[in-house]
Amino acid sequence: MSRPYTTPLSPRGLSCIAPPPPWHYSGDFLMVEFWADPAVVATTLPDGLTPDPAAAGHATALFFDWQFTGENDELLDPARYQYREFFILVDALHDARPIAFCPYIFVDNDSAMMRGLIQGFPKRIGAVHVTRTFAAANLAGPQVVAGARFAATASTAGQRLARAEVKLTEKVENLSKLGLGNRPIVNLRHFPRLAAGQHNNPAVHELVIATTDNTQLVNVWMGEGHLSLPVADGEEISDLAPTRVGAGYRGSMSYTVTDLKALETTRA
Amino acid sequence: MSRPYTTPLSPRGLSCIAPPPPWHYSGDFLMVEFWADPAVVATTLPDGLTPDPAAAGHATALFFDWQFTGENDELLDPARYQYREFFILVDALHDARPIAFCPYIFVDNDSAMMRGLIQGFPKRIGAVHVTRTFAAANLAGPQVVAGARFAATASTAGQRLARAEVKLTEKVENLSKLGLGNRPIVNLRHFPRLAAGQHNNPAVHELVIATTDNTQLVNVWMGEGHLSLPVADGEEISDLAPTRVGAGYRGSMSYTVTDLKALETTRA
Amino acid sequence: MSRPYTTPLSPRGLSCIAPPPPWHYSGDFLMVEFWADPAVVATTLPDGLTPDPAAAGHATALFFDWQFTGENDELLDPARYQYREFFILVDALHDARPIAFCPYIFVDNDSAMMRGLIQGFPKRIGAVHVTRTFAAANLAGPQVVAGARFAATASTAGQRLARAEVKLTEKVENLSKLGLGNRPIVNLRHFPRLAAGQHNNPAVHELVIATTDNTQLVNVWMGEGHLSLPVADGEEISDLAPTRVGAGYRGSMSYTVTDLKALETTRA
Amino acid sequence: MSRPYTTPLSPRGLSCIAPPPPWHYSGDFLMVEFWADPAVVATTLPDGLTPDPAAAGHATALFFDWQFTGENDELLDPARYQYREFFILVDALHDARPIAFCPYIFVDNDSAMMRGLIQGFPKRIGAVHVTRTFAAANLAGPQVVAGARFAATASTAGQRLARAEVKLTEKVENLSKLGLGNRPIVNLRHFPRLAAGQHNNPAVHELVIATTDNTQLVNVWMGEGHLSLPVADGEEISDLAPTRVGAGYRGSMSYTVTDLKALETTRA
Repeated sequence: MSRPYTTPLSPRGLSCIAPPPPWHYSGDFLMVEFWADPAVVATTLPDGLTPDPAAAGHATALFFDWQFTGENDELLDPARYQYREFFILVDALHDARPIAFCPYIFVDNDSAMMRGLIQGFPKRIGAVHVTRTFAAANLAGPQVVAGARFAATASTAGQRLARAEVKLTEKVENLSKLGLGNRPIVNLRHFPRLAAGQHNNPAVHELVIATTDNTQLVNVWMGEGHLSLPVADGEEISDLAPTRVGAGYRGSMSYTVTDLKALETTRA
Repeated sequence: MSRPYTTPLSPRGLSCIAPPPPWHYSGDFLMVEFWADPAVVATTLPDGLTPDPAAAGHATALFFDWQFTGENDELLDPARYQYREFFILVDALHDARPIAFCPYIFVDNDSAMMRGLIQGFPKRIGAVHVTRTFAAANLAGPQVVAGARFAATASTAGQRLARAEVKLTEKVENLSKLGLGNRPIVNLRHFPRLAAGQHNNPAVHELVIATTDNTQLVNVWMGEGHLSLPVADGEEISDLAPTRVGAGYRGSMSYTVTDLKALETTRA
Repeated sequence: MSRPYTTPLSPRGLSCIAPPPPWHYSGDFLMVEFWADPAVVATTLPDGLTPDPAAAGHATALFFDWQFTGENDELLDPARYQYREFFILVDALHDARPIAFCPYIFVDNDSAMMRGLIQGFPKRIGAVHVTRTFAAANLAGPQVVAGARFAATASTAGQRLARAEVKLTEKVENLSKLGLGNRPIVNLRHFPRLAAGQHNNPAVHELVIATTDNTQLVNVWMGEGHLSLPVADGEEISDLAPTRVGAGYRGSMSYTVTDLKALETTRA
Repeated sequence: MSRPYTTPLSPRGLSCIAPPPPWHYSGDFLMVEFWADPAVVATTLPDGLTPDPAAAGHATALFFDWQFTGENDELLDPARYQYREFFILVDALHDARPIAFCPYIFVDNDSAMMRGLIQGFPKRIGAVHVTRTFAAANLAGPQVVAGARFAATASTAGQRLARAEVKLTEKVENLSKLGLGNRPIVNLRHFPRLAAGQHNNPAVHELVIATTDNTQLVNVWMGEGHLSLPVADGEEISDLAPTRVGAGYRGSMSYTVTDLKALETTRA
């Protein structure tokens, strides 16, 4: 039994949308690096972050097939806790420090959405699907080898937001080249007020640095990347449509979340 | 174009999970009043609220079939904004004042979930379905007349949480008898901190009074009510299972939300 | 208790995906007439039907918000039986007789999908949403009056297939002008064989005429129609994209299905 | 480009709900053997099959996490073709031959539903989730080793139908002990008529033997099995609730489907 951390703060702690930290994650990812119009990237940055001129619009699209558990066997309730998500990271600077900021993220699970909001990820609900590898190899069960192709799509409210495809060429032996983790992820925790006259004065509005423990990257391959961010009515993510696409990656990752570092509070 | 109020705080205000207030709602509801074990009702109340001895465990189950719009024709994007929700209100006291508190609420739409969180409703994603009336009458198109039956169900993560059924007997001419609105709804706005050592010190934790404008109740009928809150693994709502079921109601409702009143801040 | 008509042919007839006829329907619709490239319309017609030169590519896009019931109160189980669907009808000829053929249809419910397959509608699962009217009028509760706007969208597997919008101008007093029902709907019942060597020899492949009883059209309004059928990866419906859009309609409809007329069997 | 095999028989073969065979599958499974009341098992059998007295009510519950592809890279469109399913197999006899029959099966994808109907599996849409293993080991990424626990749930229309859990104890070296494949699966292909007077005279009603090529079972572990089939309104699967639960299994499987063998036609 968990003590309530998130709403509903139910008596026995079972009905809460998310259990208290530590939060454990393991999953597979498909990642494609790309370049968007640097002027558009700049418009996505909150106060406190500035464009990184050296990045020249560099960004990353990530599709994750995640399993989550807290400390009470949540992985044995996969209908409630297993999930997939898609997000964009754009390169930026905090003071002079290179960081990555997440302007858009979509997830297919409400517990993951709430945990993300608490971390400062601006999560909405979407549908995300990623080609998988399975132990029983055949045409439907691609193995993680040179020449294998993996694809991923994301949508929200019935509109496609993104499609990526990666054709593997080689295993990444030196993971420091990968980029994941080279730039800390800076998020914006934000919780509005509804009281009249306070709509522009959020109760929470603070930049934070995402923090993970025991991070492992396993069996990462790189290859030829493809990415599209098609136009969708009422959505702005296509403003970041690639002007150039770089390498693609496919790998596995795990970590634990128990903490978050304040970066600065940009409003009183 | 809206100014961003909710995350993602996107440049053109289109990608935000919810537009800024005013928020306009119109919908149909099915409502069943019931009595739960008063000792269980008491366990669902946050600090600052106390059991209402006169209520003897009185509560209400509500199923709403909602249409939402902001000021930018959001009702013309029904895939993103139309939704259904199920919630429980339990009678309680704030100081000596009779109020209603919402311990559990489930909704099938992420924009409604976020707006609810901002109001202090502890929303999770669920699936809610309600029998409808249509203008073309036949066996599949029940009219709102004596003898007509309407049912509703709610589930989350593939487990049924509630089923209600109401057989209409008479139109409610005096809506002040209805109960809806007699007790103001008190919610708990709550947004946790994730920084180590701060997990028990939420950034936002305050009791508030839900406020609506231009509230209309239209064509409300009452009748024989039925309600079950079946046991579901990992869920606590069945702890409130009816010991007695009262009247059922079916009607239509509309209102606008632009404000929220602070009740008190229970933690610094 | 029903006798099993559809699989699973369960002992007590409860688990069957659809109950036996009669099938009763009531719902609201949004409809937009349009013209597609006649050469493309021709490619969608099965053997036995021919293009209607007089139609010049005329077609109809329909979005339905349906409630279904059989004879055992299925409308009181809305999670299982309430549904929405989107379909296209194209004008064609059978011998010299003007008919309408349904090349594409998407529905958000498996029971409706199976009933449709039995009728010869080529149903797939999709997501369909339609702006609704509610009895409690406000900005979120549009009334069926001149100037009111209603919209609808359809998608499948996270890709938008269609969006329609209708701005009402006047009530349709003479429903024979409406078009719905002027051309009988001809469907193709089709059930393949899987035995090796028989993949091109379906077990069922027959043209049929959809038959309804007690059809009612209620409160039908017409107005300015808008329709788009955007390009979606791996989908062909956009090949029918409008070259011209005509009037839009919004109304209510009910009928019962118990029968189907054979038109001809085009293969042995 | 595929020739249309399933509806809609679209001009370019892209919109068809399923591509033509060969159909390739690879996935992971969780399986629990159990015993139900033999008298109930008998009621689920169609004409042509008889209870297997030696089986004493033996049955199997299977949860599959599948990837599908045809010959046109369908695995790169996972939103449309990746899926999960849950089904029950009961032991029975055809003449004196031991076979397995599938009375109930639920799947979360319409293409898989149609392919199943063609094979004679009585598929309905449901939600199925299975604990996964990932390459990056941690509390959220269980490895396939002794002591690891995997769970699965299935639901339809918001009601839970089944939950299984398996705690692994040892790898199955001799797969012939496993049971999967020892009994051929006999299905009932069934497609009703709707013409008046023909509701009890289906167009297709034939027993068939499921046939797979290149079947591989990989890394199969056995362990302690748990299974529940809870009561759900309007569903009969709980009539098969376990009187005894046997071993559980977790493994990977792949095969190809291109054929089906007729067993007999039980009606003209």
